[in-house]
Amino acid sequence: MSERANKAIRPASPLDELCINTIRFLAVDAVEKANSGHPGMPMGSAAKTFTLWDRFLRFNPRDPGWPDRDRYVLSAGHGSMLLYALLHLTGYDLPLEQIKNFRQWQSITPGHPENTRTPGVEATTGPLGQGISNAVGMAIAERALAARFNRPGHTVVNHFTYVDASDGDLMEGVASEAASLAGHLKLGKLIVMYDDNHISIEGDTAIAFDEDRAARFAAYGWQVLGVPDGNNVEAVAAALHAAREETQRPSFIHVRTHIGFGSPNKQDTGDVHGSPLGADEVKLTKENLGWPLEPTFLIPDEVGEHMGRAVQRGAAWQSQWEKAIAAYEQEFPELAAEFWRAQRGELSPGWDRDLPRFAPEDGPLATRKASGKVINALAPHVPELMGGSADLAPSTKTIMDGEGDFEPGNPAGRNMHFGVREHAMTAVLNGMALHKGLIPYGATFLIFSDYLRPSLRLAALSEVKIILVFTHDSIGLGEDGPTHQAVEQLLGLRSVPNLLLLRPADANETAAAWRTALEHQGGPVALVLTRQKLPILDPEQYPGIAQGVAKGGYVLSEASPGEPELALVVTGSEVSLALAAQAELHQEGLGARVVSLPAWHLFREQPEEYRRQVLPEGLPMLIMEAGVSLGWRSYLRPDPLVEVIGVDTFGASAPGGEVMKHYGFSVENVCRRARELLERLRGA
Amino acid sequence: MSERANKAIRPASPLDELCINTIRFLAVDAVEKANSGHPGMPMGSAAKTFTLWDRFLRFNPRDPGWPDRDRYVLSAGHGSMLLYALLHLTGYDLPLEQIKNFRQWQSITPGHPENTRTPGVEATTGPLGQGISNAVGMAIAERALAARFNRPGHTVVNHFTYVDASDGDLMEGVASEAASLAGHLKLGKLIVMYDDNHISIEGDTAIAFDEDRAARFAAYGWQVLGVPDGNNVEAVAAALHAAREETQRPSFIHVRTHIGFGSPNKQDTGDVHGSPLGADEVKLTKENLGWPLEPTFLIPDEVGEHMGRAVQRGAAWQSQWEKAIAAYEQEFPELAAEFWRAQRGELSPGWDRDLPRFAPEDGPLATRKASGKVINALAPHVPELMGGSADLAPSTKTIMDGEGDFEPGNPAGRNMHFGVREHAMTAVLNGMALHKGLIPYGATFLIFSDYLRPSLRLAALSEVKIILVFTHDSIGLGEDGPTHQAVEQLLGLRSVPNLLLLRPADANETAAAWRTALEHQGGPVALVLTRQKLPILDPEQYPGIAQGVAKGGYVLSEASPGEPELALVVTGSEVSLALAAQAELHQEGLGARVVSLPAWHLFREQPEEYRRQVLPEGLPMLIMEAGVSLGWRSYLRPDPLVEVIGVDTFGASAPGGEVMKHYGFSVENVCRRARELLERLRGA
Repeated sequence: MSERANKAIRPASPLDELCINTIRFLAVDAVEKANSGHPGMPMGSAAKTFTLWDRFLRFNPRDPGWPDRDRYVLSAGHGSMLLYALLHLTGYDLPLEQIKNFRQWQSITPGHPENTRTPGVEATTGPLGQGISNAVGMAIAERALAARFNRPGHTVVNHFTYVDASDGDLMEGVASEAASLAGHLKLGKLIVMYDDNHISIEGDTAIAFDEDRAARFAAYGWQVLGVPDGNNVEAVAAALHAAREETQRPSFIHVRTHIGFGSPNKQDTGDVHGSPLGADEVKLTKENLGWPLEPTFLIPDEVGEHMGRAVQRGAAWQSQWEKAIAAYEQEFPELAAEFWRAQRGELSPGWDRDLPRFAPEDGPLATRKASGKVINALAPHVPELMGGSADLAPSTKTIMDGEGDFEPGNPAGRNMHFGVREHAMTAVLNGMALHKGLIPYGATFLIFSDYLRPSLRLAALSEVKIILVFTHDSIGLGEDGPTHQAVEQLLGLRSVPNLLLLRPADANETAAAWRTALEHQGGPVALVLTRQKLPILDPEQYPGIAQGVAKGGYVLSEASPGEPELALVVTGSEVSLALAAQAELHQEGLGARVVSLPAWHLFREQPEEYRRQVLPEGLPMLIMEAGVSLGWRSYLRPDPLVEVIGVDTFGASAPGGEVMKHYGFSVENVCRRARELLERLRGA
Repeated sequence: MSERANKAIRPASPLDELCINTIRFLAVDAVEKANSGHPGMPMGSAAKTFTLWDRFLRFNPRDPGWPDRDRYVLSAGHGSMLLYALLHLTGYDLPLEQIKNFRQWQSITPGHPENTRTPGVEATTGPLGQGISNAVGMAIAERALAARFNRPGHTVVNHFTYVDASDGDLMEGVASEAASLAGHLKLGKLIVMYDDNHISIEGDTAIAFDEDRAARFAAYGWQVLGVPDGNNVEAVAAALHAAREETQRPSFIHVRTHIGFGSPNKQDTGDVHGSPLGADEVKLTKENLGWPLEPTFLIPDEVGEHMGRAVQRGAAWQSQWEKAIAAYEQEFPELAAEFWRAQRGELSPGWDRDLPRFAPEDGPLATRKASGKVINALAPHVPELMGGSADLAPSTKTIMDGEGDFEPGNPAGRNMHFGVREHAMTAVLNGMALHKGLIPYGATFLIFSDYLRPSLRLAALSEVKIILVFTHDSIGLGEDGPTHQAVEQLLGLRSVPNLLLLRPADANETAAAWRTALEHQGGPVALVLTRQKLPILDPEQYPGIAQGVAKGGYVLSEASPGEPELALVVTGSEVSLALAAQAELHQEGLGARVVSLPAWHLFREQPEEYRRQVLPEGLPMLIMEAGVSLGWRSYLRPDPLVEVIGVDTFGASAPGGEVMKHYGFSVENVCRRARELLERLRGA
């Protein structure tokens, strides 16, 4: 049947077909050689994605960082060979050798596309639903930057964002969230091609996914277009054309494809999704599609020549844009300088000039409120700062006053309303950061960091700078109870490689934490803040705060008089408790040093000498943090010099102060535990 | 305006209105007294939820565990006072004193409803999107149990599942996933009332959520009904009636309500969502709705009497059902015994009789494959086992052969297809477990546990037994690369209170882990399994496996000859590596003990004496796990007796064995690190 279908229809010109089959068989051969990978999607999708790249996508293979290129996101990241084949054929720095090295150690052709590894890869994808959501962020960034920088007669930001998405992408909730937001925002330059191949890993998609996808996207406010045969290049082109014409709504192109197209025995089956075809079936497939069996990795000359023209095309596009930006630089030199500064990810000179310094009499103040003041002090000097909250702005204090809402009618607004969509929020932030030109931030309660972990992990893996403001950070939030009280989240976030977490102790540490966050490069930052009020540490009395936060940990308050008998090691809201306990212990004649440790990641990077100064070997430690003690303790043998006051069960609903006290966070209990620790050590 | 509206329309009978206002002002007064909470939703939703409870919901306040009760889930958990008011008024064991104690220490009226704390609360809700997804699971459980137990003329399982859902519930991706699944499954006895009050925390829902919700649910395959005025009791009743009549599709009743209904200054504003009205506004609101200012917590006699009839009604319903089940017990004594056994959560006698024991020559075998064999050995003897995978069954090996798919046409099928919806899968499992009568399981790759964390945490908090099979558990999975390689997930999951994680070392530990999982009560279990093949530990040579797994850790292989100089402490796939290194070290004359530690949670619970036997004080440890070393190490001072071979960066795409080797998991490196540790200690 598939043979008949293939032969009967010639939906593409002979040259198109040659190009499409080249892509298909580069994928097939690479998967075969690696003996691992996903041939089905590239085989089924080659025609439609080729059509996009060949006729619509504006890019310059020789400068993958050209700011005004169209963005292309392969949300169905398992189809990575489709992308690698296109990158190779269009002249990116991805030699054929790398395709032959698909999925091998240190190749630039890993199993799923990684933006940090391969030129031309815009986003790290594979975990489903992420890429399509990143693309929403890219389209937002394009609109925001266009509003900020374009001037009449001077268009320097103007590109489309295209996505290839799969069934799995559409099933994932994060994509539903992002698609709803994209419809609300009327992102007319966002175009999604949905690869509807009727097959998921467990079988026909009908076993779990028979919703009316077109109707669903229409309900989100998208333009919905259909292509009944994804191999019909002209039909795909017509749909893409219609999608580009619609500027008021994002477009969803429902393309019917056939997974493993051309494979006589495996087309339209789950077998071809994630496994090599096998030598016999490769042979049959090549025969079926009229492709030579040898050599493998064949690129016919006409194909190389035709697709290689992307290099000249790209150079011309970019040179045209460079003329435009040169004219723009003439007319708007300051704006142009700002454009390039933001592209480079540099902060403006004097960006921190209004960073507040808080006096004790400004308090007590919740660190979320301090953070709100800091954001507002930064907003005028860091115009690339743009963000919002997952419907908790009044609680997370993340509104930039007077900056307006980013809404369809107000693309220059910098405050975003993500709705109750933590996961999409974070994936969108990733897309904005990947786009470049913005420092995006998002906010929710710390407990709901659980909802957005997959995207936050991808931010860390992708080495993009996004800032997440997590408030209401512990049982200290009180009455909302255990469903809302973070317990294991601090450890959970600290365990993510390349994610910097800061949990400041007061308003001044919060200002220092924001400074660190803005200066940080190459990865996401989480700021963990309280709901409840905290005393403000007097910067006169504790001059080490700013430097100390940047180092991750420091001696906030020395034992006095004499040498410390123990260290009270604390983060965030527990610091003021430690200071109160220190005073009490000093009255008893027991010298305690208070070490504030807002950022374990940064402290770990300090020279050992510094770390030993702060926490000398042999000095007993009483550690206090309103979160799990694991991490402060190890799984196995306890450190005899260490005691931990933590929270190793779920929290409870009651006023916050009361809950804290019941869980052991009281001066009385801290002093008792300190005495017991020292007595135990003396007895030992 | 609101006053005019309120006075003009009398959408409810005087007695109905009295009941509705009683509910409203119990909520208002409780929030006011607690000085904390969410009055707006109960005020706006009281009429519709009262209508449900008064006219439709079948329940027995004196036996909240009556198996065939209708289930009611308040997905908008922040409206907890709505539920507590109804529970009190209808005669559940929730005295008025508890309502006065709303959100206080050790009350049974916490900020958000908790199933473990309050009779009549079916699910712990608050984190949005979860309750509606739990309800999908409850409706699935009802259908599955009906198919298993009902017989012609004997209907013992037959109830509806009702949900109150909010804007936030609908925005969360997990609810989109679950709603799509519910539509696919044609869950005709699931009825969702959507409380469309146009207000979210950041303002009018139109700022982020103007999708066409009715069209979206229609696209999922739901019946969509509308009630333009949620205070119109008859209109609500008519819609509920129509919803119950539709048996082929779940029903979505779009109810227009007004948050903070009746409050002259705060109705229809975000202010009334999550804060007390304040004394002045309470006064105005009571005046506006014609309610006495004093006493607070007023329950007019007519209301108490009318709503208290739920007790008699419930007793009659239950007694009718008890007659039915008595007749059923007569006719089908074995089935009836099975019904009650499953309700009690007991396993059948001899459930484990076919649990496989693997011989070395059966291997090497991936633990996921061993798990698949175990599942199939258990399936006939544990008929309440029901589950599936998030579109990865061929990889996670979680199909019960011959048990059929749970699909609309086959409600007796026990294999579920969740689609690529990890989050909804887990929320659905929670609902199935909360329903009682089933042991639900789900499966995906370990890395995607990040997608489902919010629901898994709620399983732990709700103390429900679900089993999650997480395969492809480390960099050892190979070519799929860092997007798919779990690194921090083991620690992340181990840090969740009341979540039991087991990472077995081979096929025999896998069988023992499944035994432990099935016998475990009161919380979720995660089984962490490999993609790659592992040698099978000879049960003759290592007879301690079964007992050892149940204890969480044990001496798998003793140093020989003589006393051990160090312990190789390992989990999962690293155990066989440790055994190989042990042999190598023994050849060098260095005695090493291999300790297998599949379940840290269980090991921690053993008597100290046992733990010291396994890991004697002073014995150096070389720990190996293909995951972050944090947890095995603590944040701060290193334990001089311990070295860890872990994975503290993201993984890489290459064949699994190669990746493992590059990350230090080779016999050569283990032996080198062991020697270095001992040399360092000798030098110290």
